[in-house]
Amino acid sequence: MPVNFVATPAADLYPVPGVRWGITEAGIRKANRKDLAVLLLDEGASVGAVFTQNRFCAAPVQICREHLAKNSGSPGIRAMLINTGNANAGTGGEGLKRALACCVALAGELHLASEQILPFSTGVIMEPLPHERIVAGLAAALANAGADNWANAAEAIMTTDTVAKAFSSRIMLAGRAVTITGIAKGAGMIRPNMATMLGFMATDACVSQSLMAQLARELAEGSFNRITIDGDTSTNDSFVVVATHQAQHVPVTSLDSPDGQTLRAAMLAIAQKLAQAIVRDGEGATKFITVQVEGGKTGEECRKVAYAIAHSPLVKTAFFASDPNLGRILAAVGYAGIADLDQTQIDLYLDDVLVAKNGGRHVDYIEADGQRVMKQSEITVRVVLGRGQAADTVWTCDLSYEYVKINADYRS
Amino acid sequence: MPVNFVATPAADLYPVPGVRWGITEAGIRKANRKDLAVLLLDEGASVGAVFTQNRFCAAPVQICREHLAKNSGSPGIRAMLINTGNANAGTGGEGLKRALACCVALAGELHLASEQILPFSTGVIMEPLPHERIVAGLAAALANAGADNWANAAEAIMTTDTVAKAFSSRIMLAGRAVTITGIAKGAGMIRPNMATMLGFMATDACVSQSLMAQLARELAEGSFNRITIDGDTSTNDSFVVVATHQAQHVPVTSLDSPDGQTLRAAMLAIAQKLAQAIVRDGEGATKFITVQVEGGKTGEECRKVAYAIAHSPLVKTAFFASDPNLGRILAAVGYAGIADLDQTQIDLYLDDVLVAKNGGRHVDYIEADGQRVMKQSEITVRVVLGRGQAADTVWTCDLSYEYVKINADYRS
Repeated sequence: MPVNFVATPAADLYPVPGVRWGITEAGIRKANRKDLAVLLLDEGASVGAVFTQNRFCAAPVQICREHLAKNSGSPGIRAMLINTGNANAGTGGEGLKRALACCVALAGELHLASEQILPFSTGVIMEPLPHERIVAGLAAALANAGADNWANAAEAIMTTDTVAKAFSSRIMLAGRAVTITGIAKGAGMIRPNMATMLGFMATDACVSQSLMAQLARELAEGSFNRITIDGDTSTNDSFVVVATHQAQHVPVTSLDSPDGQTLRAAMLAIAQKLAQAIVRDGEGATKFITVQVEGGKTGEECRKVAYAIAHSPLVKTAFFASDPNLGRILAAVGYAGIADLDQTQIDLYLDDVLVAKNGGRHVDYIEADGQRVMKQSEITVRVVLGRGQAADTVWTCDLSYEYVKINADYRS
Repeated sequence: MPVNFVATPAADLYPVPGVRWGITEAGIRKANRKDLAVLLLDEGASVGAVFTQNRFCAAPVQICREHLAKNSGSPGIRAMLINTGNANAGTGGEGLKRALACCVALAGELHLASEQILPFSTGVIMEPLPHERIVAGLAAALANAGADNWANAAEAIMTTDTVAKAFSSRIMLAGRAVTITGIAKGAGMIRPNMATMLGFMATDACVSQSLMAQLARELAEGSFNRITIDGDTSTNDSFVVVATHQAQHVPVTSLDSPDGQTLRAAMLAIAQKLAQAIVRDGEGATKFITVQVEGGKTGEECRKVAYAIAHSPLVKTAFFASDPNLGRILAAVGYAGIADLDQTQIDLYLDDVLVAKNGGRHVDYIEADGQRVMKQSEITVRVVLGRGQAADTVWTCDLSYEYVKINADYRS
């Protein structure tokens, strides 16, 4: 059960002109589940993407990087192929061959060059990709293609997710109505470092291709790159942003222009909802935790502290138990890796409750106050470092029996 | 239930001439348990110690550092005072005052200066130390003092430990029989960075005081600093080494001399047994895992990879489930932080089974072989990076339901 997750009804997911999704059951790992999706783009779309920094990146990630580099201009990326059930990571040269074979097959169906296809995989690592099943499923996926298929696509990319994650919004841009719709999946092996496994967003806004890489990076940086469930950075994390240009307004050529800022803010809002939805649906999660670190010298040291707290199994199990054993948070702050940290300058808040002042339990703190906040399903941990003006925020969840159960059983 | 832990019978723990332990029940957190221990040293002992690098280090750690700095020569450290049930960390200036008050009280009983006492605490963080109960218990602890009390001391320092950890050995040094005995505690919040919470070793060997700090550092580096249970570095980690000089041989003045090497090797063997005992008794542990990383450019990068594997919740839950979902290990290698890591150079072994070769599943690997090893209670993961000659080893355990249960319930 995800934490306070409000699904968007399929009818409220706006189609994005220029984008169609086709979904099918290819039987990649298990029968009777949607496990193959094809995303089709009209000519003229701009595409930006960011990928995992894991050095053991999957074969499809390597191919995506190559194909994007070759297609930053015309003729451009025209389709994406996404399978679940197998990550095609840790599969060596054979994995690259099989991912390419899938691209070639889809390109054949669509009369495109294989470099115009981006492949994505998610699932078990180090097992051979059953590429023949994927190729066999292409015709059915293409026959299913339609503009109204975002909800089905969100479902088709799920693995241990318990809910499909999709959000949509409409804004006015340069006098035109513009649509933004995005989907994402992920519930475990979540500590994205550039992006999450897998996120797709599209807008019919007109954004120059040269801006797309920057847009993808900035959106990921403010959303997927600020979440963690278990600290395990996936081999397959991929986040893709598409602009189809079909809203026909004056193109956005700078993210700092008024239109660029409007679009970025609206897209960031969707990206953050998707990222937070991943945390809300985190494996075994019962609580949604915001870790806010302020008063740092740099954003980087704020993130170090925030991730130390967000990754600590002791902090996460205390949240699960609603136990205000809050010294564990101070311990995590202490080992976060700031060499010259002065514990006597540190304050700790739980929502509005001042728990520790100047590194020690606050004189007015009573456990009943901590207990009240710990019982909530949404909690903000705020740490004030007292060293400078920088701040940053990370979103995470608790660690429950269920997390262990899910990951001890995942393949069975 | 610890993993393959063989306890040393109390009768086989050799007393160390010059060392006495006194234990009592002071009711610090719970009634009817040994929770206060006093270690008494005859005049002339040399003492070395290392402490946590957590910037939120506990009050007793701060005082230990000061007292050791003041007593590197004569008159020297003469007693140590250890309580469980309260860590006296995150307690600010008041915590320092209370720890000092305990030292002053014990010094009064023993007619020593308070700077000749080292205080140690372990237990819950950010709760006020009930120092009056400790002071009230001193007389009973002192009345109990004896040379044969190592087994009781090992029991008195336990918190979530399920077994007392104590080992002993005898060696010949410069023609004299020399004894080494050590105890340690710890089962959670274990990722020592300098030492573990808490370890005490003593020998009657004659070692010059100037060597003791180096000896403590080197022993910790080869034992406690190579274990992790949950990645949480404690606020109170302390490891103390005592040489009482009562064996009356020619003093060891260099750890590189033949006698120095003999002594260091014998002491390291005990330190490693203690450190591994902590992992075997890790909270909820069902398996003992050795992570061996070879072929690195530096020891540091080998440790990065080893700790990434040892801390990955996904790897740890796979071990718990005996599930050879070994791609998770490759993913952890990939995000360990080696920027120029080439995945095509990496081999992975599980005990004697070659699982992955050149970054991909080995052609001869069959899951039954991985399954066989995963079912064992002791497993060695061996990663060959193919970058150089450096190597290092880390010991850890799996992550089970029980870990979550213990840490969700710890204070209740």
